[in-house]
Amino acid sequence: MARTGRRPGNQDTREAILTAAREAFAERGFEGASIRQIAAGAGVDPALVHHYFGAKDKLFLATMNAPIDPGEILPQVFEPGLDGVGERLVRTFVSVWDSPAGTPVIALVRSAMQHDWSARMLREFLVSQILRRAIRALDLDPAEAPKRAALVASQMIGLGILRYILKLEPLASMTPEEVVHSIAPTVQRYLAEPLP
Amino acid sequence: MARTGRRPGNQDTREAILTAAREAFAERGFEGASIRQIAAGAGVDPALVHHYFGAKDKLFLATMNAPIDPGEILPQVFEPGLDGVGERLVRTFVSVWDSPAGTPVIALVRSAMQHDWSARMLREFLVSQILRRAIRALDLDPAEAPKRAALVASQMIGLGILRYILKLEPLASMTPEEVVHSIAPTVQRYLAEPLP
Repeated sequence: MARTGRRPGNQDTREAILTAAREAFAERGFEGASIRQIAAGAGVDPALVHHYFGAKDKLFLATMNAPIDPGEILPQVFEPGLDGVGERLVRTFVSVWDSPAGTPVIALVRSAMQHDWSARMLREFLVSQILRRAIRALDLDPAEAPKRAALVASQMIGLGILRYILKLEPLASMTPEEVVHSIAPTVQRYLAEPLP
Repeated sequence: MARTGRRPGNQDTREAILTAAREAFAERGFEGASIRQIAAGAGVDPALVHHYFGAKDKLFLATMNAPIDPGEILPQVFEPGLDGVGERLVRTFVSVWDSPAGTPVIALVRSAMQHDWSARMLREFLVSQILRRAIRALDLDPAEAPKRAALVASQMIGLGILRYILKLEPLASMTPEEVVHSIAPTVQRYLAEPLP
């Protein structure tokens, strides 16, 4: 008989781990939650959490049904440094949002507007998966970095909402490159220019 | 006996007009909907719509439970012209959002993320109540004005969502003036600098 999927037992274990992880991340945030506590919450050995999901980053992405791993696409944005970072960042975001992977991202943003729990998860996602990487790779002054990152996030989330959810014209129909050239200077300023 | 409120009959008429108006604005947009059609939908005389709500602008604001009339606060933002408009606009928005009037505005944005109907109403609100006024008062080139306005809206809605709904720090705790000085140059650029 052909094997057509995971055995139910494994699926139940995965679900138990994901449920415990969602609770832990929502209650204690990404930094505060530990694999050990999550394993205890699911009634499994921590080694099993690693076996199914790998590192905490990956487990966190799994709890959010993230369609892409920011750890795979953000190095190309941030590692070349501050020069041109605004353009690379906007181009990467628009290419993800315009792709099939954009649909669950938009769903996540929508959900975060309604539920404090989702809002907290989205905030943790922004901070732990995106902003933290930007701060490290761009070598930003730690005293200013959170403010710079929050300003960038404000422009990017507003762009996502107007283009993909509210569909305000002409933003909704602009080509990706038109969006990049319009928005990139803002992101560049927030990351690289002196703050007021 | 003291009169303690509107007579029920009047209240029913008001509600019937508001219901017909919501349907008309959602189906045909602000420009497309007419007082005459709305009155017909509510089974009342158009004069009664004017009696209860005044002009179409005011009726539209009433259907959205708008806590403030953009027609009263926006002239001070736009009428002095392009010089300094970014600062005046961000300062005015933050002062509204930080006030008790901000709560229903945030509720409206939240709702627009969930329901196509609310999204359409918010889009109509942005276009008919805010952007139209900006375009007229600032004398923007009609070929560029919608793009400029949409870019401004993307930054402002993102600011509102991060500061008041997701509460991302340090944006959530920044003083109004810090927000103004950080965001105003972006708005200024979108409205007054050459577009790409």
